[in-house]
Order: sequence, then structure tokens, then C-alpha cells
Amino acid sequence: MTGQERSEEKSECVSLSPMMEADPALPESERVCVFGTGDLGHSLGLRLLQAGYGVVFGSRRPHSSSRLPHGAQVLGHAAAAQSAHLIFIAVQREHYDFLVPLANQLKGKVLVDLSNNLRKNQYPEANAEYLQSLVPGAEVVKGFNTLSAWSLQNGPSDANRQVYICGESAEAKEAVIAVATKLGLSALDRGSISVARELEDFPLQLFPQWRLPLRIAIGLSAAFFFYLLIRYVIYAYVTQGKDISFRIMVSLANQVCPIVSLIMLSLCYLPGVLASFLQLYRGTKYRRFPDWLDRWMLCRKQLGLLALGFAFLHVLYTLIIPIRYFVRFKATERTVSVIRENRTTEFDTTTAWRSDSYLSLGILGFGLYVLLGITSLPSVSNALSWREFSFVQSKLGHLTLLLCTAHTYLYGWNRFLSSSTYKWYTPPGYMLCLVLPSVVLLLKLLLITPCVDRTITRIRQGWERGADQRNPKDSQPLIP
Amino acid sequence: MTGQERSEEKSECVSLSPMMEADPALPESERVCVFGTGDLGHSLGLRLLQAGYGVVFGSRRPHSSSRLPHGAQVLGHAAAAQSAHLIFIAVQREHYDFLVPLANQLKGKVLVDLSNNLRKNQYPEANAEYLQSLVPGAEVVKGFNTLSAWSLQNGPSDANRQVYICGESAEAKEAVIAVATKLGLSALDRGSISVARELEDFPLQLFPQWRLPLRIAIGLSAAFFFYLLIRYVIYAYVTQGKDISFRIMVSLANQVCPIVSLIMLSLCYLPGVLASFLQLYRGTKYRRFPDWLDRWMLCRKQLGLLALGFAFLHVLYTLIIPIRYFVRFKATERTVSVIRENRTTEFDTTTAWRSDSYLSLGILGFGLYVLLGITSLPSVSNALSWREFSFVQSKLGHLTLLLCTAHTYLYGWNRFLSSSTYKWYTPPGYMLCLVLPSVVLLLKLLLITPCVDRTITRIRQGWERGADQRNPKDSQPLIP
Amino acid sequence: MTGQERSEEKSECVSLSPMMEADPALPESERVCVFGTGDLGHSLGLRLLQAGYGVVFGSRRPHSSSRLPHGAQVLGHAAAAQSAHLIFIAVQREHYDFLVPLANQLKGKVLVDLSNNLRKNQYPEANAEYLQSLVPGAEVVKGFNTLSAWSLQNGPSDANRQVYICGESAEAKEAVIAVATKLGLSALDRGSISVARELEDFPLQLFPQWRLPLRIAIGLSAAFFFYLLIRYVIYAYVTQGKDISFRIMVSLANQVCPIVSLIMLSLCYLPGVLASFLQLYRGTKYRRFPDWLDRWMLCRKQLGLLALGFAFLHVLYTLIIPIRYFVRFKATERTVSVIRENRTTEFDTTTAWRSDSYLSLGILGFGLYVLLGITSLPSVSNALSWREFSFVQSKLGHLTLLLCTAHTYLYGWNRFLSSSTYKWYTPPGYMLCLVLPSVVLLLKLLLITPCVDRTITRIRQGWERGADQRNPKDSQPLIP
Repeated sequence: MTGQERSEEKSECVSLSPMMEADPALPESERVCVFGTGDLGHSLGLRLLQAGYGVVFGSRRPHSSSRLPHGAQVLGHAAAAQSAHLIFIAVQREHYDFLVPLANQLKGKVLVDLSNNLRKNQYPEANAEYLQSLVPGAEVVKGFNTLSAWSLQNGPSDANRQVYICGESAEAKEAVIAVATKLGLSALDRGSISVARELEDFPLQLFPQWRLPLRIAIGLSAAFFFYLLIRYVIYAYVTQGKDISFRIMVSLANQVCPIVSLIMLSLCYLPGVLASFLQLYRGTKYRRFPDWLDRWMLCRKQLGLLALGFAFLHVLYTLIIPIRYFVRFKATERTVSVIRENRTTEFDTTTAWRSDSYLSLGILGFGLYVLLGITSLPSVSNALSWREFSFVQSKLGHLTLLLCTAHTYLYGWNRFLSSSTYKWYTPPGYMLCLVLPSVVLLLKLLLITPCVDRTITRIRQGWERGADQRNPKDSQPLIP
Repeated sequence: MTGQERSEEKSECVSLSPMMEADPALPESERVCVFGTGDLGHSLGLRLLQAGYGVVFGSRRPHSSSRLPHGAQVLGHAAAAQSAHLIFIAVQREHYDFLVPLANQLKGKVLVDLSNNLRKNQYPEANAEYLQSLVPGAEVVKGFNTLSAWSLQNGPSDANRQVYICGESAEAKEAVIAVATKLGLSALDRGSISVARELEDFPLQLFPQWRLPLRIAIGLSAAFFFYLLIRYVIYAYVTQGKDISFRIMVSLANQVCPIVSLIMLSLCYLPGVLASFLQLYRGTKYRRFPDWLDRWMLCRKQLGLLALGFAFLHVLYTLIIPIRYFVRFKATERTVSVIRENRTTEFDTTTAWRSDSYLSLGILGFGLYVLLGITSLPSVSNALSWREFSFVQSKLGHLTLLLCTAHTYLYGWNRFLSSSTYKWYTPPGYMLCLVLPSVVLLLKLLLITPCVDRTITRIRQGWERGADQRNPKDSQPLIP
Repeated sequence: MTGQERSEEKSECVSLSPMMEADPALPESERVCVFGTGDLGHSLGLRLLQAGYGVVFGSRRPHSSSRLPHGAQVLGHAAAAQSAHLIFIAVQREHYDFLVPLANQLKGKVLVDLSNNLRKNQYPEANAEYLQSLVPGAEVVKGFNTLSAWSLQNGPSDANRQVYICGESAEAKEAVIAVATKLGLSALDRGSISVARELEDFPLQLFPQWRLPLRIAIGLSAAFFFYLLIRYVIYAYVTQGKDISFRIMVSLANQVCPIVSLIMLSLCYLPGVLASFLQLYRGTKYRRFPDWLDRWMLCRKQLGLLALGFAFLHVLYTLIIPIRYFVRFKATERTVSVIRENRTTEFDTTTAWRSDSYLSLGILGFGLYVLLGITSLPSVSNALSWREFSFVQSKLGHLTLLLCTAHTYLYGWNRFLSSSTYKWYTPPGYMLCLVLPSVVLLLKLLLITPCVDRTITRIRQGWERGADQRNPKDSQPLIP
């Protein structure tokens, strides 16, 4: 921020009577040009003005562009191009050809390609590469395309502060980074212009990290839905001729949800356990994990949040049980039959213990579940130190898995032993879903036994089995 | 950050034995002055010291100011003013007159007015303008007043990073922006000193964007409360002489909440639908929406969050139904009457289907509702790309509206046709509240039919009906 | 950002065939050196490259380090040290001795100590001080150690943007701050190297602000658990010989949770009330509060969030009541006894009013509780102005306390007067827990009476009783 010599003329230059020549009092480095007066060009110009730049809009018909921010100049394209070193191209790709006749004026200029496409692979080459081919004398930098007009106008907030740029010329990129910094953005150089395609695909992404976890969730839900449909509804119809299809809406949903939730929660902790065993087996932390494990590790957060979503539905489905017509009907029927058959009912303390423990474990497990979810919120997890985050996600996470698994075991209780449970020789859903969490908990138990734990800790501190002296200095303890 | 020649004397200057003259080893640009040793002056000084500035406090009685941060100097006002180019005025407006005798020392200095008022329109002119009138020779910049001593001391976090400044002199503002940047803040130039009033009103705002939505929520709640009070409580009293006023607390609340929630959710999606039809009718996206529509669009988030709040209360009110004394009493009474009258009860599969579907749709709708709420959290919505945000808020939002509307239709079921439903010829509340969401869903359905959708998409990409060649280059596709 | 003359050679320098001499085309200020090729060194190097720096890794065996980011150079330690002014030491403390023979090359260089320890007090002196003692000729700056390799690689998000540094040489710190700024980080100078220990302890902290509130929560829970265990379970066993131990899991938990929640919520608002009375008594806001009060004030947020956690569990425990085996059994038993004894049950409107009001107040209280929790999320509270935050946390907070206290009074109802309530002459838990909130609400009521409120407001604006003229100018109104 060397230039305090910035011109004061800026605010005197009213957009309704734009001067037709670039304000000469402004040094070129303090003036930027924007081609395109659409939403994006408008917002970008406004923001540049606020950051203290002189802004010159390039327009086809400079005299009829009335929507421009106060303080900006409007010139014809050629005059505008000559007035600044840096030119933002806020124009659609299909109109880029108007730049070809301007080749002379654009020679040596830095052109910032802001464009986005409507879908992936819309054009054979990246917009920035196409722009470079049209104006070979200019230095094209791709960037800022992840910003919307909206976020520009309202000032960037946290995550939008990060923008990516790429381009061939380091000097050009340096100039763009300087502007970004002044706008309160943090620009990261991603490399040469060949990265442009990747940057252009970025705003078109739709939850790329959520795809695999969502597919797993949908797959598991569908599989267990049909499994339970056969075991309950179809079984009842075939063997007793009863139509209990109405149970699909709540009873079946309330079985599918907890099952999928528990399985996904264990899928969230399984890769960490596997990675530990792999490190133990290899005796080093310096070899990369196989790709599938890496990918799996990277979607743990999404797996966990989906598991929380299913747990949330399970809680709601459980809490409405006493409101259901079917349940109220059954309760009345039971009382009536007690009276009519003159039976006496005996209170069973064991059943009371089991019922209350099962509910209580579920409540505590869900409470921790929600806590894990809250610490996954970006603003919360950012406020935690690494040790705190790891405490919550690992220690509390495994405790959650333990509570939920115990909750399910108590739900099963002695039905595990009764043969009537196994209709058509198939186990009920809650038994199937206990396999994975039990395995994860057992493996985790192995890992926290003192002797194994000691080895793991040493490996994570950089120790290597066998090759104790291999490059011991180039390691860093903190980051396991 | 050119200056690596910063003085090392800083940390040797202990606040308990302040030197009575400004440290000469420090260049003026690296030294700032703070007038006022209150909470704000103290915190600001500390922060400036941490950012590497030399800080000189101006005080009336420099020898008795013991609360100052370690490393700062304390001088009399005149000496302090002379020691730096930039002076922060952390003093209440009513004491500004002490600056008048310092006019000579303040000549050409940049005075940063940090002050705030206790209420709007407390004084005839802005504090910064008053300060300028007192010290005409200085260059007053208004700014930083949105920062509290608290946030200064604890380091700025995301949203507080943004500060606004205004003032006449571009040079003075440039100097203030430089300091802000070094403090880790992002300063936006809002224009001339006439904006000062607006900046001073900013910290006095109390949820300005929430006012309209809150008024709508309160108005709707009151209207439906009285409507339902008449239809249920007063109707029962007048026609049957029964006092069921106790139902106000839960039953009535549990009818008002879902009704208001559903209406507000549709009010949240109605303006988007209207805007689309307006664009269709006009055949262009380049004409501004009418003001009322703009204002409505800007409070959609607040409308949606209030709707979520009412939905949350509705869920709680519904879940406690079986615990209510009234409900438990009725259940016992019903069973007793079945026995005493020796009736048999018949299980009705259709009712079971309806009851379970109605509950299930409500649960799924509420789940999506919560998801929409979570993605409205600033830290979450900032982490989404524009396409992801629009997917969640538009696609999932309309799905939520559809589920909640279907939930309400199933609640009504065949009661729509029964004349006993229309007490005193008035429809029940849930029927009234279905009008708006049904209209919104119908209009949305029209909009997503292929032919309409194609036209809308083209308009949003910049196409204009009739005037196909009007300035086609100055548009940008991404931002609808 | 003066240097646009950055070398273009960067991207041509492939890591697989590293040049053995530092690239001479790069000016020293644009080149940094990283010692250590572990996770942290690797991520830091990558990030530095992306920010536009030339990066030279120092390695023992430069020819076999294949894991380095593309574009970085690898040299032997001595050559690497000579190539740059700034050297990041991403090596474990126990290996620091390899730096001793490099004393000549490191003379005058800035060494940034990034190291962390595995536990507090692992070594007698701070790592940075140890490093300084090994290489007295270099200028050691401690810093960046709160960043993990993970957050470096993924780009810093909000909270991680803040890094702390300390060191003796202001010039060296200035150079490190410049690098931090270019990396998109905001570095705060915390003072001399003696602060290093504190910075090194920082990443080892485990929720330091949560400890006291957690201890209070656990202590209260344990105390009330045993109190209620004696009053209910043991009392029933001793006086009636009944085993109702199964009630521990849900009934007792559902009494402990609301009791602890209400007490902690009042503990959250008590210090504010006490502070106001202290200011009233002292007649000034300029005297520091006693340390215990300061500490208490600083953990109000944590107290409130724990209170919310307990309230959340209370809600879940309450909502599952009708699903419990015990409750369903009792309901059937009651109906059966009505029939068998041919009793008639009378509907009691007062009980209905009480039951519904009690539930309704609880629901509204919990709704506000959740709202308070949401505004405590960093990203939400940052988006609020100071006045908005204070409105929510103070006004809505006290309203929440009022609603929850009224909920508890209604729960007690006429049982306060019945002697059978006082088993073994002890009051039930809910009576005990009403003491503190009632006191807080009474004190708050006193504070908002007009005459007291006026005095408090004047004191917070800087007015002082008795010494009206004492230094009136050095105060600032906004920050109470």
C-alpha cells in the first residue's frame, strides 16, 4: 500500500456524465478496467471503487450504459483497454470475439477471465485458453470465477474470501493477487493456464464430497427396506393372510433409519481403525495409504453427518409412536382384553430395567451424536485446536458408537436366543446392523490396549520399525 | 509492509515509567496516537502494539494513567498529537471540545472518529462532522465504530473483520485502510463524510432485516389465535356450554404454530415464483423488480427461519400430546366406555394408513426444514458453492413446502367434505393455511414445465425477447 | 507486494530432478527455506509455493526426498540455509542438534520454530529458547505452531487464520509477519521469546474454558443424583420395602437433568447481576471486578451451553415417557382398576390448565434456550452487532430463565404446601433448584426498576459517583 497519491478526482466523476477519456491524474497501477456491464461487472466495479481503485468500464455504447456504479468511468472498449494494465473480462464466452479487433490495445495487458459455463464440458477448451488463443499478445489469468455478483456486492465472508487463480505469467498473476488482496480476498495461485478447466468446473460442482456417502446411504436404505418389507409385511401376508402394509410408513421407516444410521456411524470410524492397523503392520507412517482408504477417510465427516440425519429421523419416528392410531388402538385393545378375560398383569422389574436402560442409552447416544454434529459446523470446528477437535471426533465419537451399539443390543435383549425371531430363517434387521459396529468397537479396543497403543503412538511420532535411523530428522511430531 | 526498520525500543518502553517525549527512533508512519484511555482506547492500543505499531496515548494527566497496555507511551495531548500522523479519538463526543485548543498540533493530522451514540438522532449532526467542524485543519475519517473493545482485544473473527470508513480525504482514508489491514481488518471505503451518520447508526441497529418478517409472524399468530379461539373455545361455550378454555395453552398453540409456519414458508418461496413470472412477462432480466418485491426477496431467509421456529414449536407441542392430563384422561375414559357399553372396536386399515402417512410426511418435512435451517447458518452457507446453495434453498426448499402441504392435506383428509367441520360456516384453520402453499406449488409446477423452464433459463442467461441484439455482450451467465 | 519481478523459473524446476544450487534468478526476499520434509514441511512448502514464494527444502539426503511438492528445490542443509533469509524449522526438537554445525550459514538468518510438544512441561525450556541457545547467531521467531499440516494444505479457514508469533528481534518478526500475510494468515506479535512456552502450550490445551463449567455440571449432577436416589429409591425400599431401582435410568435422570440445567442457567446470569450491583455500590465502572467474578463472567457462555445440553436431555427424557414399559403398565393398571372398582373419574379443569400451562411454558422456554444456543455459534454471534448480541443474550436470556423457572413452579404447584412432599423432612429436588433462579430473577427485577436502571446506565456511560470531574474525557460510551 505505497500509493497515498491516489487521485481525489474519483468521487467527482459522476457516472451519468462520464468523461470520454481516462482520467490522467490516476496512475495506471491504481486504475483497472472492467469489460462488461452486467451484474458481475457492475458488482465488481463497485467493489473495486470501494477498495480505492479507479474503475473504467469498457462498453460498446458508452453513452447509454446508465446502470453503472457511481464514480466509475465508461469508455469505448478500445479507450478503456488503453487506460489500465489490468482488464477484467466480465462477458460471456460466446461474445469473446469482440476482443479480436482490440488486439493492439490489449497487447501486454493482463486479462482476467471471470467466466463460468452452464455445464461441464460445454466447450472443447477452457474459456481462459480460448481467450488466450483469441488475444495471443495479452496475458490471460483465470480467476475470481467462484465469486458471485451477490457475494462481491455484500463483501466477502469467510469461505468466499478464498479465490483461485491460474495463468502462465507469474508477473500477471502477481498483479491479480495484489488486486485480490486489496479487495479483502485471499488469492491462491494454482499454477499454469492448464488448470483453468478445473477452476471453471468448480462452481458447477454439486456436493462432490457428498456423492459417495449419499450413494451408500441410499443403497443401504433400499436394501434394508426391501429386506424388512419381506420379513414383516409380506411374511405376515403369506403366513397369516394379514394386511399390515400400513406399517411401511412409520414402523418400517423407524427400523430402516436406526439401522442405516448405526452402519454409517461405524463406516465413519472403520477407516481410522483400518489405517491404524495398516500403520502397525507396516511399522511406519511414511507410506501412503491405498487410494480407496484415502478417499474413505476424506468422506468420514459426510458419513457421520448422514448418520446423524438418520438418527434424527429415528428419534422423531420413535417419539410419535404413542400418537399413532395403531398404537392407541392396540393399547385400548390390550386393556379391554385384560378386563374381559379377567387376567391380572404382573409388573416385571427386569423388563422395566431393560426398557428404561435401552431408552436412556439411546437418549445419551443421540445427545453425543448431536454434539458431534455441532462440532462439525465449520465455525465451531475452526475454533477448536487440533487436540480438541481430535478429542471430540475420536474419543466422543467412539463413545457415541458404543452407546448406540449398546442401545441396539438392549433392544434385541433375549430375542437373540428365541427361534421365533428368525422368520423364514432370516435374522431381524437390528441384528444384521450390529455386525459392523461390533467389529469396529472390538478393533478399537485392541488398539487402545497399552502395548498396541504405545507402538501406534511411537509410529505417529515418526518412529519406523526396522529402519530406526532412516532420515529421522525430517519429521514433525504434532500431525498424526 | 515495506518497513523492516521498525524500532526495537518498543518493548523496552515500560508503561509504568512512560517517557514524556515521543520515542524519536520510530518513524512517524509506524507510530499512531490514541486519545482516550477508556476500554476502547485501551483495547485499540493493545491491538496496535501487537500489530507492530508504536502507540502513544494522549492523556490529560499522563502521569496517573496506570491502566495502559505494556509498551505504550503516555504523553500530554499536545505532545502526543505531534508524535504521530494518525490519531484515534476514543473519547465521547460530549468531550470533543478539549480538541479545540489543540488545533495547531492537529493541523494536517488524520483524526479517526471511533465514537458511537446511545440512540439514533441523538445529535443534530454526525459525530464525525461535529469533530471536523471543531478541528477544520485536520482530516477526519469516520470508522472502526462497529468494533467493540471486546472484539478488538480478542482478535477479530470473521464478520467483525469488516469495518467501514468514510471521509473527505482519499489520502487520509488510505492511511486508515493501511492501519486496518495491518490489524487484520478489511476496511471498505463508503464515501464522503456525509455517510458518517449512517455508519454511526449501524451499531444501534436491532435486527433491521428481521422486523418485517417478525411483524408478519406476530400478525398471523394473533389473527389465527383469535380465529381459532372463536371457533373452538367460544363455540363450545356458546353451543354446548362447555368450558374448554384450558385448551388454549397446548391445543390452540399447536394449531397456530403449524398454520403460521406453513404460511410463512410459502411467503418465503412466493416472491421467487413471482419474480420468475415477472421476468417471463417482461421477457428480460435487465429491468429492476418493483421495490416491494426486492424488499420481499431480501427477507426470505428471515421468513424461512421464523417458519422453522414455528415448525419446531409445533413438533414439540405435538410430541407432548400423550403426556397431557387431558389426553390421558380421555384415553382412560374411552377404554372404560368400550368396556362398560360392551362395544367392540374395529381396526381400520385406512385410518392407520392415513395416520401413519400424515405423521411420516410431517417428520420428513421437518427433517428437511431443519436441513434448510442448518444451511442458512453463515459458516455453512459460505462453504457452499453458488450452485450448491441454490440447489438446497430452491430444490430442497420447494420439496419441504410440498411435504408440509401434503402433511396438512392428509391431516384434513375427508373432513374437507364433512359439513360438521364448518362450525358457524367458517373453515378450520388448517384449510385456510393451505391456500397460499397450494398456490405457490401450482405456480412452481407451471414454471418447471419444460417449455416455460426453457424460456426462463434463456432469459436468465441474458437473452431478451424482441430486442435480441440489444447489447448482448455486456452480460454474464452465471448469476441469475 | 512490490515485487512483480518474481522469477518465472519456478515452475520449470521439477522436484524429481532438483538443482543442487539455489536458483539465482530469485531475489532472497522472495525465497524461503524449509528444513524438514515431513507432513508439516511438505504442506508448508506447498502453501508457500502457491503464495508465490520460491521454496528450498533443506534435507540430509537431498537426492532421495521424493515426496516434495512440485516446484520446490531440495538442497543439502548448508546450501539451503544460504539460499534464503527466512528458514522454517519443521523438525522435531530432539533433532535440533543437527543445526549446531550449520552455525555459520545460519548467522543472521531468521529461524521460525514451528515445533510442538507432546505434553506440557515436556522439556525444561521452550523449544524456541532451546533453538536460540543452539544457534545464538540466528534470530529465532516462534510461531505458526497452532497450524496443522491439514489446515495449511486446505487453506486456512476463519479461526485458523490467526497465528501468534513471538521473538526478540522486531525485524525478524516483521519478516515473518510479511510471509504470514502473504499466506492469507493474520499474525499477531505476542512479545519476546519468553512467551514461546505459552505459544507451545496452546495446541496442547483441551477446552481450558470448559473445565470449570464442566466441573460444576458434574458436581451438581452427582450431588443431586445421590440426593434423589436417597429420597426416592432408598426411601421406597426402607419405608415400603419396594424395589424401584429401575427408575434410576429414566425417572432419576429426568429429574437430575432439569435441576442441573436450571441451576446452571441461573449461574450463567448471576455474575452479570452481581457485577451490576458491585458497580452500583462502587459508583464507578472503572474499578476492576474481583478476579473470581472476572473468571466467572468469562465462562458464562460455557455455563449456558452446558445448561442447554442438560435441557435437551430433559426434553428427550420427557418425550419418551409414554413409551416406557413402566408408564404403559401403570396406565393399563389404572384403567383396569377404574373398571374393577366401578369408580367414575371426574375431569378436573384446574389440573388440565396446570398440566397444559406447565408443558407449554417448558416448550417455549426450551425454544428460547435453543435460540440462545444458536446465537452462541461463532458464525452467528459474529454476524450480530454488539447491541443485537446483547439483546439476545441478556433480554432473551432472562426471559428464558423466567419461563423455565415458572415451568418449575407450575410443576411443583400445590405440592409445595403438602407435608407428604417432604419425605424424611427433605424438600424434593425441584424445590431446591428453584432457590438460585428465584434470587437471580428478583435481583434482576430490582436492577430494571427505573431509578436503579438510570443510575446503572449513567455509570456505564462513564459517570462516577462523588468524583464527577475525574478524568471525564478518557472514556467511551459504547462498551459497557
